This record gives sequence, structure tokens and C-alpha cells, in this order.
Amino acid sequence: MRPRLTLVGAGPGDPELITLKGLRALQTAGAVLYDALVHPALLDHAPASAERLFVGKRRGRCEFAQEDLNHLIVEYAQRYGHVVRLKGGDPFVFGRGFEELTFAREFGIETAVVPGISSSYAVPALAGIPLTSRGLSESFWVLTGTTRFHQLSGDIHAAVRSNATLVILMGMQHLDRIMRLLCGAGKEDLPVAIIQNGSCANERVLFGLAGTIAEEAVLEGFSNPAVIVAGEVVSLNKEFFTQTNKVAVDQLLDSLGVGGRPGIA
Amino acid sequence: MRPRLTLVGAGPGDPELITLKGLRALQTAGAVLYDALVHPALLDHAPASAERLFVGKRRGRCEFAQEDLNHLIVEYAQRYGHVVRLKGGDPFVFGRGFEELTFAREFGIETAVVPGISSSYAVPALAGIPLTSRGLSESFWVLTGTTRFHQLSGDIHAAVRSNATLVILMGMQHLDRIMRLLCGAGKEDLPVAIIQNGSCANERVLFGLAGTIAEEAVLEGFSNPAVIVAGEVVSLNKEFFTQTNKVAVDQLLDSLGVGGRPGIA
Repeated sequence: MRPRLTLVGAGPGDPELITLKGLRALQTAGAVLYDALVHPALLDHAPASAERLFVGKRRGRCEFAQEDLNHLIVEYAQRYGHVVRLKGGDPFVFGRGFEELTFAREFGIETAVVPGISSSYAVPALAGIPLTSRGLSESFWVLTGTTRFHQLSGDIHAAVRSNATLVILMGMQHLDRIMRLLCGAGKEDLPVAIIQNGSCANERVLFGLAGTIAEEAVLEGFSNPAVIVAGEVVSLNKEFFTQTNKVAVDQLLDSLGVGGRPGIA
Repeated sequence: MRPRLTLVGAGPGDPELITLKGLRALQTAGAVLYDALVHPALLDHAPASAERLFVGKRRGRCEFAQEDLNHLIVEYAQRYGHVVRLKGGDPFVFGRGFEELTFAREFGIETAVVPGISSSYAVPALAGIPLTSRGLSESFWVLTGTTRFHQLSGDIHAAVRSNATLVILMGMQHLDRIMRLLCGAGKEDLPVAIIQNGSCANERVLFGLAGTIAEEAVLEGFSNPAVIVAGEVVSLNKEFFTQTNKVAVDQLLDSLGVGGRPGIA
């Protein structure tokens, strides 16, 4: 049998959000190379004899440069027969799965991709936010906060001026800038949600408005991994009204000098 | 036990692209209400005793108006305990799943959503096209061809001018117009792929350029259900070069008067 690589999307975090096809790939793996945001329970689906290797980021640093990882995949496929490359979310959505697949093919490795549930729409959905809704939003635009050198996609400038629901993945380090851009486009009152650790037991959601949520997120200690959603659809979530009203009340108390909110250092 | 509704995404077509959580919901269903693009094999996961009802479109017509369907879901949940609403792709991506869920809640039904693999990125991925790729595309914009009255999302005007990879779901009836808009934005040479019945055994893919693919699609008889992808990332697929080169050769033969291509009636 020719050596084989299967790129498998692990989904947003909850280990039950892998597909049956992804599960079957794991069950026949000779080796599993997995990323940081993959739930450890998924590795239990691989045979006990299968080699398991963590190839993700640890303390913000990659274990392997992409080029080294590409070579490692080929080496593992040749040594173990079937290597499963298990990636968080979907392997082709801002992953570098396509690069890995293309590289392996050049070495005669048989390749396949098994899509995974992408956080871009599933994390909002699980937090009670549909990305589209008749009359409110007819499209959605997904951007990343981690292009080369961890930069925000330059498409953000056009995105903040569009009518699309915006979804920014892994963009918390740019939150203040994104919200300033929205405000610059006259959208101070646009509903925004930040969902950290979406689909996991430690999920947290912050609702607010483009004009004020960046400050709130700092106070509440929100950080990556997170999905930022900006659009009128956010207001379809009932919690939105509770939380944004809380912000309004806090601001009122502040302005009256009776609030107890800590300032930002 | 309170009556329960679980909205489950069935994925793009391949019955193995449902999630483990979706499968578990089906296995405990008292009734399954399913759509047209759901693979029949998925219904086998429900208990033999479970009620099964088709509520999708037949010959272009809906079996139920949305309002009637909302009431039916509540009635089924009350009668059968746990109703699974099985929808193609993801229930919150251009589905009306959120409306169904909100409606049911008002009647005291306990609700949950299980995301499904959305065709928007998975169908391109399975056809060998990543929606994003370093240096080529840093974002993607998903639109629908079936807003109210089957209209194309008005966001298309901004979308054709953006740098995002464009994905249009169920938009074949607007293909000519979308391509004219791209050409109007100076993108005649933008690579485009049309994927019909993505992820299924009868999947077909057409590669071309914005300036010429609409005519090709008519000749080849492409129609919904299909995903249209427009962006430089399409050229990462090796078949793209084969097929667009074939178009170029056909056109050359035509211009020399030696081609055998049938004209459009």
C-alpha cells in the first residue's frame, strides 16, 4: 500500500464535533500529528499502537517550522503507512493544510482531506448567534488576525465598510484596532460578540458595541483563542441585551461618580 | 422530560460528514424532520420506531411554508419528546434554523444546535481548493443566491470589488450576472470554479475564468445545488490549468472555424 496522508479537521474544540469520516481516519492511523487546539480525547480514537506527536504551538512558539513539518509528515507517512494530520477547526480554513497536502503529493504520498467544523460559524452558532438572518444579514466575511507575522488581514479595511457579518478568527491582539476601524466607518453602535474557547467547557462570551467592547474585553481578560463577530445578527441573542444594558448601567454609574469599575492601568 | 428540539447540520451531502454529536442526536430522536439535500442514509441512524417526515422542497416547491413548519416542529416535539430537525450543511448558515429554534423556545421547548459541515468551505476543499492561502487570499466572503424571492444577496456589488475569495451558495440562476459584475470590476481573468453536488458520488467540477465560465456552464449543463468559488486560490488546483487550457484551445479552434462545440440556442 502506498503511504497515505489524511488531513482531518478536529472541529472547534468539543471532541464530539469531529465527523464520522474523521473518526474513521483516526481509527486506521499509524501515526497522528496534532495541533495545540485539538482536544486530547480525540487522540484516544487512534489505535493504541499509533505514534502520537504534538506539532503545534507551545507558549506561543511553534514546535516545528512549517518546512520541517512538511518533511516530517512525509517521513511519518513512509514509516507508519497512514499518517493523520489532525488540525483544529477545518484544515483548509486559515490552516496551512493545503501546503502540507501539496508538499506530500510531490513525494508520491496519497492524500485526502476530511473537512472539520470551522469555528468561524460554529462557535457563534453555539453561542446562540446565527451569522446570517433574513432582513439583517445576507452574507458573512471571515478574516484572520494571524496572517504572516501575526498581522491582521488587510481586507479588514473593506470589511468594516461592508454589510456582511464580520468574523475575525484569532484576532484578539488586534481588537482595539478592529473596533476603531468600525467606529471610523460610523458603526459605533454595531453589536459585537467575543467568544473565547468556543464550544469548550470553559467558553466565555462577551457582548457589547463596537464603540465600547474593546475596553470591556481588557477588563474582563478576554484573549485568544477567540472568535470576534460584528454585525446586527449579534443582537438576535437575548444575552446581548442583558450584557449591553449592564454596560450602559455601568457607564451611567461611572458618569454619576458612583461606579465601582476598576480603571485600566 | 421537557419536549426537546435539536437542530442538526447534516453536512454537504456525504453521509459520513455528519458529526458524532449529530449522530447521537439522531440515535435518540422520537421524530426526524428532514430537508431535501439530506442523504437518506442518515435517517437510518434514528431508531426504527422514530417518525420520519420530509419537510423540504420537492420540484422547486416547499412542502411547508416556514410558519407552518415552525408550528409542526413544536407539535412534533410535544408528541414525540425529542424532535431532530435535520438540515443540509449547517443549520445557521443561510438556513432558517435560528427562526425555528427561537419559535420553539417560545413554546417552552428545550432547544440545542449541533453545527454541521458547511458546504461553503468544505465543498471547495473536497474539490482541492482552499479558500485561503498565504499570499493569495487572507479572507473569504460567503453569499447566498437565495435570499427572499430567490434573489442574489445585494452584498455582491461590494464583494466583487473586494480581495476576498468569494463563495456563492445556491447561486447558479445568477451565474451570468455574478460573472458580469466581476468583469465590470476588471476581473475577467479571475479563476472561478463551479462545484455541483459537492462531496457526493455525482460531484462535477467546472474550472474557468470570470470572463468565460458562464457560457461554459450552460454548455455543460451545470445547475444548483452548486457552490461557486471566485478567487486566485482556485488556480492552486492543478485541474484548473487543464480545464482552462482546454477552454483556450476550444476558443482557438472556434476562431479558426475548426471547432466542434455546439452553439448556445
